[in-house]
Amino acid sequence: MKKIAVLGYGVVGSGVVELFYKNKAKIEKNTGAELDVKYILDLREFPGDPYEDKVVHDISVILNDPEVCYVAECMGGVNPAFQFVSSCLEAGKSVATSNKQLVAEKGDILLQLAKKNDCNFFFEASVGGAIPCIRPLHTCLAGNDISAVAGILNGTTNFILEKMFCDEMAFDDALKLAQELGYAERDPSADVDGADACRKVCILASLVFGKHVYPDSVYTKGIRDIALEDVQLAQTFGSAIKLIGSVKRLEDGRILPAVMPMVVPSDSLISHVDGVFNAVMVWGDGFDKTMFYGRGAGKLPTASAVLGDIIDAVKAAHTVTSHEWILADNTDFIADMDAFSAPRFYRTAACCADAAEQAAAALGLEVCKTAENGCIVSACDNKTAEAFAKALEEAGASVLAQIPVLAD
Amino acid sequence: MKKIAVLGYGVVGSGVVELFYKNKAKIEKNTGAELDVKYILDLREFPGDPYEDKVVHDISVILNDPEVCYVAECMGGVNPAFQFVSSCLEAGKSVATSNKQLVAEKGDILLQLAKKNDCNFFFEASVGGAIPCIRPLHTCLAGNDISAVAGILNGTTNFILEKMFCDEMAFDDALKLAQELGYAERDPSADVDGADACRKVCILASLVFGKHVYPDSVYTKGIRDIALEDVQLAQTFGSAIKLIGSVKRLEDGRILPAVMPMVVPSDSLISHVDGVFNAVMVWGDGFDKTMFYGRGAGKLPTASAVLGDIIDAVKAAHTVTSHEWILADNTDFIADMDAFSAPRFYRTAACCADAAEQAAAALGLEVCKTAENGCIVSACDNKTAEAFAKALEEAGASVLAQIPVLAD
Repeated sequence: MKKIAVLGYGVVGSGVVELFYKNKAKIEKNTGAELDVKYILDLREFPGDPYEDKVVHDISVILNDPEVCYVAECMGGVNPAFQFVSSCLEAGKSVATSNKQLVAEKGDILLQLAKKNDCNFFFEASVGGAIPCIRPLHTCLAGNDISAVAGILNGTTNFILEKMFCDEMAFDDALKLAQELGYAERDPSADVDGADACRKVCILASLVFGKHVYPDSVYTKGIRDIALEDVQLAQTFGSAIKLIGSVKRLEDGRILPAVMPMVVPSDSLISHVDGVFNAVMVWGDGFDKTMFYGRGAGKLPTASAVLGDIIDAVKAAHTVTSHEWILADNTDFIADMDAFSAPRFYRTAACCADAAEQAAAALGLEVCKTAENGCIVSACDNKTAEAFAKALEEAGASVLAQIPVLAD
Repeated sequence: MKKIAVLGYGVVGSGVVELFYKNKAKIEKNTGAELDVKYILDLREFPGDPYEDKVVHDISVILNDPEVCYVAECMGGVNPAFQFVSSCLEAGKSVATSNKQLVAEKGDILLQLAKKNDCNFFFEASVGGAIPCIRPLHTCLAGNDISAVAGILNGTTNFILEKMFCDEMAFDDALKLAQELGYAERDPSADVDGADACRKVCILASLVFGKHVYPDSVYTKGIRDIALEDVQLAQTFGSAIKLIGSVKRLEDGRILPAVMPMVVPSDSLISHVDGVFNAVMVWGDGFDKTMFYGRGAGKLPTASAVLGDIIDAVKAAHTVTSHEWILADNTDFIADMDAFSAPRFYRTAACCADAAEQAAAALGLEVCKTAENGCIVSACDNKTAEAFAKALEEAGASVLAQIPVLAD
């Protein structure tokens, strides 16, 4: 029998233990192996918990027990998770983690450690919660050249934007509701300012393009500036506003990772992803495009992904060769927003139809949509977008908001 | 170096060869193995084709060559594909197939053959074309108890229904357009009467619930009876009509597989899957629900899935334990439509609002929506649905159509 240790008995860790025992027989059949949870590492005691006898406080108990082959890291944060996970991998124990910060900041080191010790460092739960996306990206889609990934990677902001869209709530009211429902933290910054989505972009970009992308290389803008009027104008254009995390390979071979609010037309399936759900759209040469959708967070959804990784670790005889990326010695492969191009949405204080037509013609752009108080123009870079905004201003239509449009 | 043989050099087979050579370096890095296509089996010659020197006409050349470890079967049909695939598996060569008919009719036998010979029989391409769904179902989601699967498994019918929905085309006109665009065969029966979706339901049901489900156990109804008026009425109810293939575990433990047109409310992401795209929604205890979306057919999309399987076969040291089901010695585990329950959509010749309220109250149903010429009532079995239809008739509102509603 092979044993599992769970690090951290909070929301996700307790979900992993609960789901494992609920479906133990199925999991053993799936893996063809007898399995059990032997230890739960936590600073706290859990008197009365059905698994209280498994709780230990010292990682060395786990490290020194050769029966423990698989470790689920559900602690969160970089320290001491990084040190614990490193030690587990050095001891040849495969690790599955739900800790996106750990993967985004230390993924390259931990993947190399796993390879060196012929075990695995898996992190399906770190992007999109329950959604199978990390594994399909490097298995099912492995025959393709993947060119771009874009998606809704944060459920809290998606819930807030949906409340603005469907219930005409202002940002502050929608945030307050999200906090009341437990979808947003008291300090909501990591969600609404984009840091959480940024970490997930780092992980997706690193996996798809093979070199570690750190959070400080990713242009990151949250949703605090989105006004109800922006959402309403987008709606009249048949679009929604979503916080989109994306990475795209440019023609010069560099990649451009970014997190920002985008206008998403209703013919993109992403625009219909509502509530706390997440979705990851991927583009490649053979399959064209494919999308993965599901719950991006929560106790059992996240546990589902961690357990899927543990199950795969049991089945893998060696390090999975496709599940890796390398440390890059520079960031020359990452482009900045000067290289960004997209159609643009403008909200204006006065009717801008005539001004938009004139400015667009002068700048070689096309006006795709116009309304009483705004327009959408065809794809351009940031410099042209600013020139267009300036032309609108000069024609008396002050620009109140400018948002890029996600082209499918 | 390990070699691949491709059986059948038609649309899919040539796509596999094309995509393999386009992305050979990536694929070799992903698998950690040197790979090449050694043979292409086809009855025809391909003079001028860049790979004409690889074409052979005799399967025994492939069977007797120990260098060939992996076989892509892209011939279609049961004979001689079944015989060829069986022989390959008996020779210990792993097989990846795009042939849904072969898997739906012979999957149990071929999976047992693969297991006996410690190789793999993979078929990601057989359901949903390029969409990663088969592999995530038995890997990423393996920690869960999966309770239901439902989706759009046929692109041709989805294209036709979308043309009816968006462009107000009648069924016959939309079918004609699909034929002109090459989306539908001259004899469109396998698509429009549901046989193609039925095969995919068999495969999904067998994989998820572990016992082989044959096509004749699946209630199958196509979209020929769907009138433009049905689609329009559904639209006024905020819904679309889609051909849904599904399988669900009932409370008594039996499973109910079915293919039929269903009304899909717009709050289900499935209702927004348009054109020739496919989508597979899955429900389970940990992850709640997740959906996979992408191109359900086509040369390179299907090739993408076949290559993904070949790549996984290269990485798998042994038979993948989770990728199997068994032959059941009876069909007692499969329920028929007597056990089916769903909300119902009725289209009537005359206004049915009052009659609907009365009949619903008498039958313990709730009227969810009403319009000038129809209504939707809460979930009931077929017997109650018929009783409700009869009550509408008796009240003077002849029932012109009755369609079940997909509850999310």
